Amino acid sequence: MDAKHVALKAHEDWRGKIEVISRATINTPEELAVAYTPGVAEPCLKIAEDADLSYTYTRRGNLVAVVTDGSAVLGLGNIGPEAGMPVMEGKCALFKEFAGVDAFPLCLRTQDVDEIVRTVSLLAGSFGGINLEDIAAPRCFEIEAKLKECCDIPVFHDDQHGTAVVTCAALMNACKLTGRSFAETRVVFSGAGAAGTSIAKLLLRLGVKDIVMCDINGILCEGDSSLSATHAEIASMTNPRRLTGTLADALKDADAFIGVSAPRVMTKDMVHSMADDPIVFAMANPVPEIMPDEAIAAGAAVAATGRSDFPNQINNVLAFPGIFRGALDVRARDINDDMMVAATKAIASLVDDNSRSAEYIIPGAFDERVAPAVAAAVAQAARESGVARV
Amino acid sequence: MDAKHVALKAHEDWRGKIEVISRATINTPEELAVAYTPGVAEPCLKIAEDADLSYTYTRRGNLVAVVTDGSAVLGLGNIGPEAGMPVMEGKCALFKEFAGVDAFPLCLRTQDVDEIVRTVSLLAGSFGGINLEDIAAPRCFEIEAKLKECCDIPVFHDDQHGTAVVTCAALMNACKLTGRSFAETRVVFSGAGAAGTSIAKLLLRLGVKDIVMCDINGILCEGDSSLSATHAEIASMTNPRRLTGTLADALKDADAFIGVSAPRVMTKDMVHSMADDPIVFAMANPVPEIMPDEAIAAGAAVAATGRSDFPNQINNVLAFPGIFRGALDVRARDINDDMMVAATKAIASLVDDNSRSAEYIIPGAFDERVAPAVAAAVAQAARESGVARV
Repeated sequence: MDAKHVALKAHEDWRGKIEVISRATINTPEELAVAYTPGVAEPCLKIAEDADLSYTYTRRGNLVAVVTDGSAVLGLGNIGPEAGMPVMEGKCALFKEFAGVDAFPLCLRTQDVDEIVRTVSLLAGSFGGINLEDIAAPRCFEIEAKLKECCDIPVFHDDQHGTAVVTCAALMNACKLTGRSFAETRVVFSGAGAAGTSIAKLLLRLGVKDIVMCDINGILCEGDSSLSATHAEIASMTNPRRLTGTLADALKDADAFIGVSAPRVMTKDMVHSMADDPIVFAMANPVPEIMPDEAIAAGAAVAATGRSDFPNQINNVLAFPGIFRGALDVRARDINDDMMVAATKAIASLVDDNSRSAEYIIPGAFDERVAPAVAAAVAQAARESGVARV
Repeated sequence: MDAKHVALKAHEDWRGKIEVISRATINTPEELAVAYTPGVAEPCLKIAEDADLSYTYTRRGNLVAVVTDGSAVLGLGNIGPEAGMPVMEGKCALFKEFAGVDAFPLCLRTQDVDEIVRTVSLLAGSFGGINLEDIAAPRCFEIEAKLKECCDIPVFHDDQHGTAVVTCAALMNACKLTGRSFAETRVVFSGAGAAGTSIAKLLLRLGVKDIVMCDINGILCEGDSSLSATHAEIASMTNPRRLTGTLADALKDADAFIGVSAPRVMTKDMVHSMADDPIVFAMANPVPEIMPDEAIAAGAAVAATGRSDFPNQINNVLAFPGIFRGALDVRARDINDDMMVAATKAIASLVDDNSRSAEYIIPGAFDERVAPAVAAAVAQAARESGVARV
């Protein structure tokens, strides 16, 4: 069987990649009387007095909803809620396997911003956190912002922020490897969607000063009246030298390239035109902006992709399990910038000075040190930034 | 420790009575590539072509949402969504333990009918069935009716229909025991809420012809302009002799009493006034309408309650696990009257002529024959009534 048939067969055999089990043994009338009536009335009454006790007496404190509207599933596009479910179940399986977080998938039959926001907010009392997934831009920004406003539990759009954390961790080590400080590194993006803008914002927060964003129409520059609201916002925060032109124009003398766009939009000539020892992260999936071996052949000092079959895979699984683990552990009411910065540094720090190389700037997906390190750093940052509740 | 403290401690130790686990092992890059990207794209694409394949490739076909608004939790009243969660988790644990059904609790932060209906309908693509729970009457009727209208998966309000199925099964055996046919049995209700009206409707369907419903104001009689819409409807279907007056008036010469109302509203004198060998089901919880030993002392031939510490416990756990098991097994698009009748007869039939007695008219909660028998009967009825999809 080829890989596609193997995957189909595996999914058919699993009949779902998640399962809801009972933590209570209920084999006798006595056990039934404790887990259900009349015993169950006691925790109900305690929670009715103090809603925070739901974290003590129910699963809420370890439970995340993985929510999508099916509008931007993987690279498959707007395939709808039912078809998005295998990805959401996979995400939930990863939450459990990598960080012991219970996660439950909810695929909504609406793509209306306000309806998604209202639905999730009505469910927020049943969960300890909300992971938004595979919702198309720019809707995803509005949904996340509104939910952060109205929910008392953390809301995190992994396609934006999980990607940002792992990419920034890898770039941090790539810069160390090539003797650069963030403050003096010029970074050029191909792609100004959800992932691109979130990576750019986290890089700004981490001290990068010169970022140029490009989309399919070229460089985003403040004052361009043709820009969308989202692009106008990120343009106003980037491109300090007010460049205009194409991606090729932007890349001249740039230190780092971050591709979150489309296959093969970068050429060897563009790599040649960059500064010495350039950094090339080509993360379009499955076909990157430039194949990493081509980038290296064209002079790149280090290359990374989203693929598992090349070195330096930028994989969100390094971030979201530990980030939610840490947030849940301190019952954080938010996942804020400080917590994302802490997660970034925690991931980067696991690649030490002795082991860092052009082929090892980021831990592997199955490095068991990652989730606990991220969780500890995120929990600490939550406490220091005042969003921890225990 | 007393029972209350035992229950609290147990809930604290469980930290939730349910858990979401992974059915996929994800320990290697190869396993990750099958369960998540890129392999997961294959089932997504198949479901995008045919949404019914969500039953093959995801957990949906074994998954029920247990939904409440926290407005009528146990006998505790309107304690809200967070405080209702221990009961919903308990229900989910019972689904799994008794019938292998995965069930997930969703407690909504709204008590508005249309908002509840809209929320559940938006989630319906993620589940194979919806179990409504502990929603106050009369809102529960409207929510159930609207959801049955707009959802393509079965919707079942257990407080109504689960109670009806088990009560009718017990009454069927009580009538056999006392030599009555349903057609000639006069049944009087104390309580005309969600459970009472649902039991009455199922009894009518099973062939009972003379039912008199009483609420706190006495007998419900068609034409009384003071009745609510719900009470007017059930009054129009019952009370063929057009009785008026009190519960005591209704009970004179009645064959069976069904109490789903309040503690101690029935007296020994009322039992005395009933026909010979009367049947007394006093199901108010925890304190019944009349204690069963008092009912027997006053001449009742058989008594049942909702309590586990007396014979003949009317316990919903005999119904809902098997009903959903059967509905899911044939991917039923509805749980209709035929399926409830089938469940009723299946439960009743497990008490055979040789074992039936005044202390054994209904199987015990832990009788392992029940859920499979109910599931088989419900699946068969779904097929015969044309709502099965496989």
